[in-house]
Amino acid sequence: MNDLRHPHPQAMSGEELTALFEQVSNWGRWGPDDERGALNHIGAAEVARAAALVREGRTVSLSRDFPTQPGPENPWPAQHHMVIAGDDPCVPGVDGLEVSTDYIGIAFHGMASSHIDALCHVFAQGRMYNDHPATEVKSTGARRNTIMAARDGIVGRGVLLDVPRALGVAFVDPEHLTTAAELQATEAALGVTVGKGDLLMVRLGRDVRRAAMADQAVPGLDPRVVAWLHERQVAVLGGDGVHDPIPSGVVHRDWAMPIHMLGLAGMGLHLMDNLDLEPLAEVCAELGRWTFQLVAAPLRIAGGTGSPLNPIAIF
Amino acid sequence: MNDLRHPHPQAMSGEELTALFEQVSNWGRWGPDDERGALNHIGAAEVARAAALVREGRTVSLSRDFPTQPGPENPWPAQHHMVIAGDDPCVPGVDGLEVSTDYIGIAFHGMASSHIDALCHVFAQGRMYNDHPATEVKSTGARRNTIMAARDGIVGRGVLLDVPRALGVAFVDPEHLTTAAELQATEAALGVTVGKGDLLMVRLGRDVRRAAMADQAVPGLDPRVVAWLHERQVAVLGGDGVHDPIPSGVVHRDWAMPIHMLGLAGMGLHLMDNLDLEPLAEVCAELGRWTFQLVAAPLRIAGGTGSPLNPIAIF
Amino acid sequence: MNDLRHPHPQAMSGEELTALFEQVSNWGRWGPDDERGALNHIGAAEVARAAALVREGRTVSLSRDFPTQPGPENPWPAQHHMVIAGDDPCVPGVDGLEVSTDYIGIAFHGMASSHIDALCHVFAQGRMYNDHPATEVKSTGARRNTIMAARDGIVGRGVLLDVPRALGVAFVDPEHLTTAAELQATEAALGVTVGKGDLLMVRLGRDVRRAAMADQAVPGLDPRVVAWLHERQVAVLGGDGVHDPIPSGVVHRDWAMPIHMLGLAGMGLHLMDNLDLEPLAEVCAELGRWTFQLVAAPLRIAGGTGSPLNPIAIF
Amino acid sequence: MNDLRHPHPQAMSGEELTALFEQVSNWGRWGPDDERGALNHIGAAEVARAAALVREGRTVSLSRDFPTQPGPENPWPAQHHMVIAGDDPCVPGVDGLEVSTDYIGIAFHGMASSHIDALCHVFAQGRMYNDHPATEVKSTGARRNTIMAARDGIVGRGVLLDVPRALGVAFVDPEHLTTAAELQATEAALGVTVGKGDLLMVRLGRDVRRAAMADQAVPGLDPRVVAWLHERQVAVLGGDGVHDPIPSGVVHRDWAMPIHMLGLAGMGLHLMDNLDLEPLAEVCAELGRWTFQLVAAPLRIAGGTGSPLNPIAIF
Repeated sequence: MNDLRHPHPQAMSGEELTALFEQVSNWGRWGPDDERGALNHIGAAEVARAAALVREGRTVSLSRDFPTQPGPENPWPAQHHMVIAGDDPCVPGVDGLEVSTDYIGIAFHGMASSHIDALCHVFAQGRMYNDHPATEVKSTGARRNTIMAARDGIVGRGVLLDVPRALGVAFVDPEHLTTAAELQATEAALGVTVGKGDLLMVRLGRDVRRAAMADQAVPGLDPRVVAWLHERQVAVLGGDGVHDPIPSGVVHRDWAMPIHMLGLAGMGLHLMDNLDLEPLAEVCAELGRWTFQLVAAPLRIAGGTGSPLNPIAIF
Repeated sequence: MNDLRHPHPQAMSGEELTALFEQVSNWGRWGPDDERGALNHIGAAEVARAAALVREGRTVSLSRDFPTQPGPENPWPAQHHMVIAGDDPCVPGVDGLEVSTDYIGIAFHGMASSHIDALCHVFAQGRMYNDHPATEVKSTGARRNTIMAARDGIVGRGVLLDVPRALGVAFVDPEHLTTAAELQATEAALGVTVGKGDLLMVRLGRDVRRAAMADQAVPGLDPRVVAWLHERQVAVLGGDGVHDPIPSGVVHRDWAMPIHMLGLAGMGLHLMDNLDLEPLAEVCAELGRWTFQLVAAPLRIAGGTGSPLNPIAIF
Repeated sequence: MNDLRHPHPQAMSGEELTALFEQVSNWGRWGPDDERGALNHIGAAEVARAAALVREGRTVSLSRDFPTQPGPENPWPAQHHMVIAGDDPCVPGVDGLEVSTDYIGIAFHGMASSHIDALCHVFAQGRMYNDHPATEVKSTGARRNTIMAARDGIVGRGVLLDVPRALGVAFVDPEHLTTAAELQATEAALGVTVGKGDLLMVRLGRDVRRAAMADQAVPGLDPRVVAWLHERQVAVLGGDGVHDPIPSGVVHRDWAMPIHMLGLAGMGLHLMDNLDLEPLAEVCAELGRWTFQLVAAPLRIAGGTGSPLNPIAIF
Repeated sequence: MNDLRHPHPQAMSGEELTALFEQVSNWGRWGPDDERGALNHIGAAEVARAAALVREGRTVSLSRDFPTQPGPENPWPAQHHMVIAGDDPCVPGVDGLEVSTDYIGIAFHGMASSHIDALCHVFAQGRMYNDHPATEVKSTGARRNTIMAARDGIVGRGVLLDVPRALGVAFVDPEHLTTAAELQATEAALGVTVGKGDLLMVRLGRDVRRAAMADQAVPGLDPRVVAWLHERQVAVLGGDGVHDPIPSGVVHRDWAMPIHMLGLAGMGLHLMDNLDLEPLAEVCAELGRWTFQLVAAPLRIAGGTGSPLNPIAIF
């Protein structure tokens, strides 16, 4: 996916990325045992205020469908198997009971799967958030920074920055990394200001582009954006891609996916990957507002590196 | 699980159950193609009003942990496998990237799993909600009444009826089926009134009982309760058990799990099974209120009979 | 995979295939309850005689590796997950025990997977071997013609017909369907005669071709070959592809994969698909003989439509 | 499973076990890169000679059925799911094709599963066969001593030592560990002599006992037996249990399962666990001989710690 020989013009050097990591690091900020990271920006006030955004009584899913079909972006499809179907709806041991049941299985960290990354999902030079070694993620489950940090849900103000809409394009070109200045221009165009504790959803138009183009490129953000996220005290970053562009265009092998590394490992910023932001963008445009209550409820997977996710925006 | 030879004193005859099914049936009520059933009781007004219940800015999960450990209530444990752990955090083809990833698999309709039942999960005499034959649930996935009916989330007013608290007992005895009169007494004791579009959570104290007793019995509701749910226009029923008691004590093999059959197949009432209502009960008691905004976000499983679920109560 | 608009020149009409099905059908031949089909051609004498072929004391696997990597021929890769690895080799409840364990999962009827097809795997116009309806294969498992028919292993004389070697080509062109005449020419060239109860392995050079060509075509046999297999009383057919060519070039939608349908459903002929016959071909050429003892041991999957398989040739 | 407070009377001390490990160790014996261990005892002569044992032309499976049903010995049941059944036997993209397919999944190192242990399955004080550290078994797969060492099958002379038959009892009491002297008495009673390269199957009557007794105890061997196996140059040890008794009765936490540790890690002795030896015992008794050709064909799982297995005895 990355190619060190063809660096992106916006690619940062190893020294620059190391300095940026130091700048945005939240290691120790909420104590040595903290596993919530930037979720700490969401306090009771933020939760309560977000609910006040609900007016029209509409709900919108930000999730793609469970990715059972193979494809270039889904080399390891999820399993969905019927265990009992309507052709034989019996349950051994329960006389007369007629049911259907099924089974799902998924390695959810794929490009076709809407999911959340726990803070143990990505390491920077062998360390994860709050200075724990990668080896704390055992073959038998993670011991630190698991998705259980979000077990009571992530609830707050959702903000959609619909970059193509603000820039007047169909989609962002994967060759160009969206900058903080462009996010700010989007804020201005849409009339919103990203702030403390926000669950920031950035739409780059991946799905519109995918329908139009044959290649597998996915637009992404300039790594310098994390400094802006840090300054604004954003609690979660979501996107229609994976924030880092594909292909990555990185120049330093120590920084293969800089936003993941700076965000998850440095800031303790939970990431929501591969969301479907098209329906959300339509509702925002229809209602003329880009803020809403957002509720994300990961499965409570002890030792887990994340979870499949269906975030719900409520207007 | 059921034993036709030892009927429960509150067990209803086949004739009574058939009549009750006719009484509560919503077949055709929202058109021949409807797949949302009682979720239709939740309109925009109900969604908006529920958000106004958020004041303290607290969130509580209603889910148990992902059930990977075997036990008497979990004969088919879920899988949670690390695919890449911190001992070898490399990704083939992506030079320098250090990640951990995992895989989950679950047949989620089990007694240890917090989940939602889609309207295709249970049949009554070979038919499911809105008069579709069981055979519409194929081995390759359900064609009708799948969990996709709830793909944009279930959002509304949650109400906790904490029956043991209202009755002054530690838990409800599985030998006794909680009646509509007792639910109304609980309403009175807690100062709430269940109404149109509510997501009703009924706590019977299963977990308190489980900690105290050696057997596998689970308290449940009297089947006649569905008439009351129907009258009150409840949108969803949740519980710490599976609503039907275990063992079932039914008297007629055509009605092996009457509440599931009357609710899912007749009323089109989505059921949330095996929730952990203990933390919710504590917060309700602490705050002295038993209503809250409730958000449930099933995975978008095309053809699915339900989904694992982590419902979030927001105060 | 098939394209009715571009029929293969060797494609047979529906009438011809129906007549051929009647000709080769073994329905009723070994009684109405028989589920072994052509395996009945292997008697005690055949088993004993096959063992006499062992002289050099060499063993060769006919299986590909467990197909965990995605690719054009493997859209649904198998799972291989470590459950406990050496970074944390503990077993809960067993003090001091240090182990590693793993998990495998596979939908084994894929083009990258060496496997055996049970007689319930393919239907011809809704019927399977010995005139049972397809509906006897339930969502909860097959009731008839399962892989359990081979639970005590398939042991007999293996014969390799190395067609490219005999024809003096690197591989068979997928555009041409190998005929019975060509199989007989191969017999003559190699000095073998296929006979009653043989486990016939036909090498068409798929892997040599795959390494040389970019497309996904796989060479196959002319459907008329089944008449020859029937006449020779072959017990099992194995190949480096799936016997039917890909793409299929069929002309009649009722006969989408004629060899599978004529063989499995008509003759009751177990098929071994996607074997790796390259090492076997090398050993045969080195030893100058194309017959050997062959042992195949399917997993005992009750209700199963086949099994992953590692057949072992013994010289 | 083990209880250090109630040592078995035959339990060996840590010092004795350490000395026995040194005595039977094959580390370095076949070179520093060897991964086949005691399989090296099987040469071409042993393979060829074993085939000469085939006379009657009968085959017998030594495997239990695929363990999909939960139970005290099967807390993590295997998955067997139909992916396509006969109620909807279509294949997307292949017009007219009618098939049924299924999926299997298994963590095969369980007490209900007939399987083979690779030499990386068990460690002794952090080391595995041929002095490799446990950490060479990564979360992403084992790097050393995988089941691929047996990818071309394990073929040789099988010997059944039917201990209860020789001793005139229905089954061996789990309280008593079968000794080398008793194995030799069984040899004498049955008229066989275990020798170089043999695949030794030891029947202790677990299944007969299980049918008669309510507890979960499983009979096993005295750890000192490995010295005898070493001296006899046995290539593989199979059994109806797991060789080590359950409960273990060990006295030293460094030696939780001494036969697994001495055998797999020390001798490089592949173990076949939880076989069903009842049908084999019947055929041996009927034919009056306890030797046969035995063929075991593990799946070719790269990085795997073993495989489910259906060993076939051929008479």
